[in-house]
Amino acid sequence: MQWKPSGVVTLTTDFGLSDHFVGAMKGVMLRINPNLRFVDVSHQIPPQDIPEASFCLRSSYFYFPAGTIHLAVVDPGVGSGRRSLVVVTRDYLFVGPDNGLFSFTFSDPSFLGAYELKVRKYFLTSRGATFHGRDIFAPVAAWLSAGIPPQEMGPPVGDMVRLPVLQPRVGASDVEGEIVHIDRFGNLISNVTEEVYGDLAGRCPGRRIRIAVSAQEIEKIVRCYDEGCGEKPLALFNSSSLLEIFCKGSSAAKRLAVGKGGRIHLYAA
Amino acid sequence: MQWKPSGVVTLTTDFGLSDHFVGAMKGVMLRINPNLRFVDVSHQIPPQDIPEASFCLRSSYFYFPAGTIHLAVVDPGVGSGRRSLVVVTRDYLFVGPDNGLFSFTFSDPSFLGAYELKVRKYFLTSRGATFHGRDIFAPVAAWLSAGIPPQEMGPPVGDMVRLPVLQPRVGASDVEGEIVHIDRFGNLISNVTEEVYGDLAGRCPGRRIRIAVSAQEIEKIVRCYDEGCGEKPLALFNSSSLLEIFCKGSSAAKRLAVGKGGRIHLYAA
Amino acid sequence: MQWKPSGVVTLTTDFGLSDHFVGAMKGVMLRINPNLRFVDVSHQIPPQDIPEASFCLRSSYFYFPAGTIHLAVVDPGVGSGRRSLVVVTRDYLFVGPDNGLFSFTFSDPSFLGAYELKVRKYFLTSRGATFHGRDIFAPVAAWLSAGIPPQEMGPPVGDMVRLPVLQPRVGASDVEGEIVHIDRFGNLISNVTEEVYGDLAGRCPGRRIRIAVSAQEIEKIVRCYDEGCGEKPLALFNSSSLLEIFCKGSSAAKRLAVGKGGRIHLYAA
Repeated sequence: MQWKPSGVVTLTTDFGLSDHFVGAMKGVMLRINPNLRFVDVSHQIPPQDIPEASFCLRSSYFYFPAGTIHLAVVDPGVGSGRRSLVVVTRDYLFVGPDNGLFSFTFSDPSFLGAYELKVRKYFLTSRGATFHGRDIFAPVAAWLSAGIPPQEMGPPVGDMVRLPVLQPRVGASDVEGEIVHIDRFGNLISNVTEEVYGDLAGRCPGRRIRIAVSAQEIEKIVRCYDEGCGEKPLALFNSSSLLEIFCKGSSAAKRLAVGKGGRIHLYAA
Repeated sequence: MQWKPSGVVTLTTDFGLSDHFVGAMKGVMLRINPNLRFVDVSHQIPPQDIPEASFCLRSSYFYFPAGTIHLAVVDPGVGSGRRSLVVVTRDYLFVGPDNGLFSFTFSDPSFLGAYELKVRKYFLTSRGATFHGRDIFAPVAAWLSAGIPPQEMGPPVGDMVRLPVLQPRVGASDVEGEIVHIDRFGNLISNVTEEVYGDLAGRCPGRRIRIAVSAQEIEKIVRCYDEGCGEKPLALFNSSSLLEIFCKGSSAAKRLAVGKGGRIHLYAA
Repeated sequence: MQWKPSGVVTLTTDFGLSDHFVGAMKGVMLRINPNLRFVDVSHQIPPQDIPEASFCLRSSYFYFPAGTIHLAVVDPGVGSGRRSLVVVTRDYLFVGPDNGLFSFTFSDPSFLGAYELKVRKYFLTSRGATFHGRDIFAPVAAWLSAGIPPQEMGPPVGDMVRLPVLQPRVGASDVEGEIVHIDRFGNLISNVTEEVYGDLAGRCPGRRIRIAVSAQEIEKIVRCYDEGCGEKPLALFNSSSLLEIFCKGSSAAKRLAVGKGGRIHLYAA
């Protein structure tokens, strides 16, 4: 493998921005590799919400230069028996707990393998068992960024923990999906991709595809937020090609009183 | 024009820090120019509040090294017909939507021109029309930071959108201004500059200038927060030379129940 | 003294992330030293809470590379007579107001001295007396990072302001401590160190050490959060070797209705 570090490490955690946790991790990394550059993806993942962190990382990791290391720590099982991982793909490394955070990479064609973090010389001499972000993941990421190959970190792993995949249920003339994320603007992001929608439309030629969220019909699909009118909820395919419900200038989540896990139903009428 | 990039890009957006939006933009930029350095000015601009973003940027852009590129994305009209701009001043470039965000630069003596972003080879191959921050503004800023001249980005523009300027009304013996920002500490920042105040005092020699905010008189103008006493609201000229109302150790906004857009009245007594 | 800057400046403030304050400080620093790299420790210190800022910095400063400059601005006395300082330790410099923020360094064996910031040529030409973060501390930190020795900044100071040290009261068979911080997860962090606990246990051989927080007994001390069960509050020694009360997957602060300053009592039963 010819993996070559770019010198960029991204961070995705549920540590928030009030405590010293993120600063301590960056300090640890700079001590090992003073030339590292950091990009914070998010530290506002809701506490211990692994699927949300996974969604956040999966929506953004591929924009970074090849050679970027993605460090993610949402880790309710810290200090227990759960394994620590480095996941290797063609362009990126992912470092964090083996709790499903990185499962979106495992079925990707660019997936190359995963290794358990076992070699203690790459860890910080630990104080306690509660902050592997600082004591294990940060120093390992920094050593990887300095050129230590991932397979030096420990034995290969094949049975990584996988999150249940939130695929929509696809029927002959309908699709039932789920709201998987609500963004800062109160937009409702579903797990229905433009492709799934296109396939449904293709299976039902000449019929109109209707969309309902929590028993409320969405009038139409538009191209951009600015095509909304008044406070009527509308749909669009967002910047990740996911079907999204929005209200122009206000929060669709509040207006429709729909939260994460809410159902979205598409059917040919 | 001898514009030379400093390698620093600042970011001002309403994207918040929970979603992956800011991370994705930085990833896109690092892919184009791996040596870029970022400074976040604010991502907590209230959703779609263009005047607030403009105030934030205008209060800080000039502290940065010459050659800095200021990227700002508060963009309710994304995907619609609104133009995308690069604004050129003697020391800085500004990249973002043509919705008034940068209008404080247009009447500045250092203003050199503006160009519409039209040349698609500097864009990201787009998915959807909802995230120009990632698809247009970020890659253009990165290319500019790598030395592409701004005039390569598209045709010159002369009729940029301008925000209504929030100038105070200046009378013979009074001034009526407005609260244009409330900061983290609950301080009320007005649009009355030290100069406007000085001119008023100069026009009314021997008379005391009184200050009232929302029918409550402010006793006096002091030099610094520490000169406040108890919870009495006082005034000072702040670090941007704007008249500001504060309460020592507490929020003037809460205490006076005044919000953005509230009136401040100065009159010679 | 052979102090050699690493090129890293950390920032700890109560400025929040909505206003332009932090961006302005970074701009000022980059103008003086374009090669600086910043790490934000926290900007979410509660407004004017000096002890909280001191706790945050003290928990993290030592993870950074030798040569790091720690800039901290929580500064209710800005513009008053309070002095401005650079504190020199073997590995680090600390720059900020003389209000106790850095008092944890004064009794450290690595403490080498402190100097008052008095030499105006290292300040920004000031506008007003309300933002020393931007006008004094940021430019001084940048000049120090560029190699100006700390003793150039002004006369040595010996009588720095010290925060009252929040040491637990240690009795023959008990210890009474205090909750000194509540983190993002609602964990209650006390000022009882693992060492203080070990000493108490050593003084009371064969007896069980009981722990009570606000009249509620804590069943036991475990190793990591994952060993919690249900919503029962438990204790552990955290990543800073401090006794911490947590509830697995929820907020101990909410569950026990205990805030900062709450009492924690350890006694041999």
